[in-house]
Amino acid sequence: MDYGEQALKLHKRLQGKLETASKVKIKNRQDLSVVYTPGVAAVSSFIAQNPEAAFDLTLKGRTVAVISDGSAVLGLGNIGPEAALPVMEGKCLLFKIFANLDAFPIVINTQDTKEIISFIRQIAPTFAAINLEDISAPRCFEIENSLQNLGIPVMHDDQHATAMAILGPLQAAVKLAKKNWFNLKVVISGAGAAGTTVAKMLSCHGFGNLYCSAVSDVIVIDRKGIIYKGRSDLEGYKKELAYFTNKDAIRGDLEKALFGADVFIGLSTGGILKAHYIKKMAADPIIFALANPIPEIIPDEARKAGVKFIATGRSDFPNQVNNALIFPGFFKGLLQARLKKITPEIKMKVSQALGQIIENPTPENFVPSIFDARVVKAVSSAVRDYPKAGLNFDRDLH
Amino acid sequence: MDYGEQALKLHKRLQGKLETASKVKIKNRQDLSVVYTPGVAAVSSFIAQNPEAAFDLTLKGRTVAVISDGSAVLGLGNIGPEAALPVMEGKCLLFKIFANLDAFPIVINTQDTKEIISFIRQIAPTFAAINLEDISAPRCFEIENSLQNLGIPVMHDDQHATAMAILGPLQAAVKLAKKNWFNLKVVISGAGAAGTTVAKMLSCHGFGNLYCSAVSDVIVIDRKGIIYKGRSDLEGYKKELAYFTNKDAIRGDLEKALFGADVFIGLSTGGILKAHYIKKMAADPIIFALANPIPEIIPDEARKAGVKFIATGRSDFPNQVNNALIFPGFFKGLLQARLKKITPEIKMKVSQALGQIIENPTPENFVPSIFDARVVKAVSSAVRDYPKAGLNFDRDLH
Repeated sequence: MDYGEQALKLHKRLQGKLETASKVKIKNRQDLSVVYTPGVAAVSSFIAQNPEAAFDLTLKGRTVAVISDGSAVLGLGNIGPEAALPVMEGKCLLFKIFANLDAFPIVINTQDTKEIISFIRQIAPTFAAINLEDISAPRCFEIENSLQNLGIPVMHDDQHATAMAILGPLQAAVKLAKKNWFNLKVVISGAGAAGTTVAKMLSCHGFGNLYCSAVSDVIVIDRKGIIYKGRSDLEGYKKELAYFTNKDAIRGDLEKALFGADVFIGLSTGGILKAHYIKKMAADPIIFALANPIPEIIPDEARKAGVKFIATGRSDFPNQVNNALIFPGFFKGLLQARLKKITPEIKMKVSQALGQIIENPTPENFVPSIFDARVVKAVSSAVRDYPKAGLNFDRDLH
Repeated sequence: MDYGEQALKLHKRLQGKLETASKVKIKNRQDLSVVYTPGVAAVSSFIAQNPEAAFDLTLKGRTVAVISDGSAVLGLGNIGPEAALPVMEGKCLLFKIFANLDAFPIVINTQDTKEIISFIRQIAPTFAAINLEDISAPRCFEIENSLQNLGIPVMHDDQHATAMAILGPLQAAVKLAKKNWFNLKVVISGAGAAGTTVAKMLSCHGFGNLYCSAVSDVIVIDRKGIIYKGRSDLEGYKKELAYFTNKDAIRGDLEKALFGADVFIGLSTGGILKAHYIKKMAADPIIFALANPIPEIIPDEARKAGVKFIATGRSDFPNQVNNALIFPGFFKGLLQARLKKITPEIKMKVSQALGQIIENPTPENFVPSIFDARVVKAVSSAVRDYPKAGLNFDRDLH
C-alpha cells in the first residue's frame, strides 16, 4: 500500500488528524465557574484594560494561524480551500510535534489579494503569528508585504522557510566542497515563491546597509528560459529578479545557464536536470534537486555523472531538505521573543544556525534530519537570541 | 479567593486553556510521509474531486468556529476581540468536554456588519458550523440572517441557545404549576438578542404555516418601558417586536407589565424585580431571573414573596439556566445530521426534549444540570432525528 492509500485510510478513520484539547478538567460547577462564567469575566476585564495581556492569558500567545487560499498546493496547483485543508492540518501537527506550538489551519474562500489582506487583518487578534501557506505567486508577495505592519509576524512559509532550509545546508555543502562562497555561481531553476526568495537571499537583495555575504552570481530560469534584464515578457517580481541577478545578462536554456556553475538549486520540475548538463558545471558541483515527488535529477543518476553533494526533498534519499527544518523552530523563536516582524537578518542567522548543526558533515550527511532535536533548538535560539545582539527591530527592512 | 482571582491565576499559569493536539503519532519519516507529504497529496486530490469529502477526511466535519467581534461580552459590553478571547476559548472547552466536538475561537478586528458577513463567508470552508457569540443587537440579527445560505449552519448562540435553554425548563415549570400554556401571559425584561428570540418563539413568530403553540400574550420591556405598537422611538427589530407582542398595546413600566402575568423572564439587569411587583402577578408565578452575576431577584427574596418556581443563571442556586444546556448537544446533532440550516421547528423540538429530561420535576429541580449526561444526548437526538420525521429542510423558514 503506497503512502497515498495509507493517507486516505488514515484520514478517513480519524476524520482528519488535528483536534482541540482542554488544558483543564471541568468536573463540577466550581470548575466551570473558574474556567467559564462568572470567573472568566475577570480575565476578560483585565485584557480589556491591558490588551497585550491576551498573549499571556489566552491561547493567542502560543498559537499560529496556518492560512491558505488553496491556490498553489504541493504539486497539485489551484485545488481550492477544502482540498488544501489536509495539508494545512498536517502542517499544524508538525508545529505541535516538533515545537510544541499550537497551530490551527484556516482555509479561505477567496483568492482576491485585497480580500485576503483584509481577512488576515480581521483575524489577527486571535493569533500570535500568521503562517501563509500555498498561496500562488505573485499574490503571495503582495499579501505578505502588505501585512508587515500588522503587529504580529506574518511569514509566507513557501518563500522563507524553504529559502532558509536551502541556504543553511548549502553553506555546509560549500564548506565541504572547499568552495569559496563569494565566488559561487548559482543557478536556480524555478522562479516561483521559493526560487525568488532564495535568489534574493543569495544576492543580499533587500538587506539595505546590513551586513550580508552575497555570492558572485545567481541565475534564475523559468519555463521560458534564463531571466535577464530586457527579456520582453517579464513583469512585476520577475522584472525585479532580472535587475539583481544574472550580472552578465546571459540568455538561453538551463544547459547554457549551468556552464561553469557551482550550484544548481531546483524548485521546478522532475527530471529536467540531465546528466550531460552536469558535465558543463564547475568541478565538485552541488545539486539541490528539490522538486517533489520526482527530483530534477535522481541522486543515483547524479552520482554517476560525478556529483558528490546532492540533496533532495525526498525522505528516502540522504540529505532531505524540507521547510519543516525551519518553520516549527522559527515560529517558536518568534513567539518566545514576541517579535513583530521578520527581517532579512533573522533569516540569515537562522540559515547559518541550521547549516552548523552537523559538526562533521559528509557528502551523505550535510542536511540535518527534521527528527534531530537540535534543529528546533538551534533555529528557535537563532530567532530568539537575535534581538539581544542589540540590533534595531523597528527598522523597516523591506 | 473568588472565582475571578482563581480564573486569572489559572489563565496565567496555563496561558489560556484550549490547545491543539495530534490524533496521530509521528515517530519517523514513514509516519510523516503518510500524515504529510507525499501521502497527503492523495487526500487533497480526492477532496479536489469530491468537495463534500472534506467533511469525512479532515477536521472540518467535526469542528465548530466560535466567532465573536467582542461587542457584547458577558455583562462587560463592548470590550473588543482580544478581551473576548477567554470567553470564546472557554466555550470551545465546553464543546469538547460536554459533546466531544472540536471548536476553535476566532475573535475578529471589525464590528462592521458587512465585513463580518464577508469574513464568515471566507472562513466557512474550514468548519462544519459557525457559532456566532457575543455580537451586539441589532447587528447579530442581520449577520445571522444574511448567512443562512452559507451551506453550513450558522447560529447566534446568545439568541437561540439561550431561548431554547429557557423554553424547555419553562414548559416543565408550567406543567408543574398546573398552568395552561395557551393561556400564559409572559413578561420578558430585556429586548436584546436573547429576549427578542424568546419572544419570537413564545409567539410562534417566524413559523409560517408550521405547527407551533403560542402562549396567550408576551410583553417585552426594555430600558424605556413596555414595547407597544406606536412607541415613537422604536426602530428595526424592536418595531417588529411591537408588531407581534403585547396584543392589548399596554404601556408603562415593569410593575404595570407584570399585572396578572404568569411568567417573568429576566434577561436584563440585577435587582430590578421587586418583591411587591410579584404580588401583582397571577397565582403561582414562574420566575426566570437570568441576569448574571446578580439576578433580577435573589431566589430567597422571591420565595419570601411566595414564589415557588424560580430559575436563575447562577450555579449556586437550584435550577440554573445556561446556554451550555443547549449548544454542545445542538451542534453535535447538527454535525451528525449534516444539516445546512437551523429552522424554528428544530429549536422547538430541542426545547421540548430539554424540558422532558427530568422525569419527576419539583420546584427545586425543574432545570436539568449541564453535568447530566442525558442533556447532550436528548438535545443532539432531537436535532439529529428531526429530518427523519420527513419534514422539508430546504424550505427557507426565515
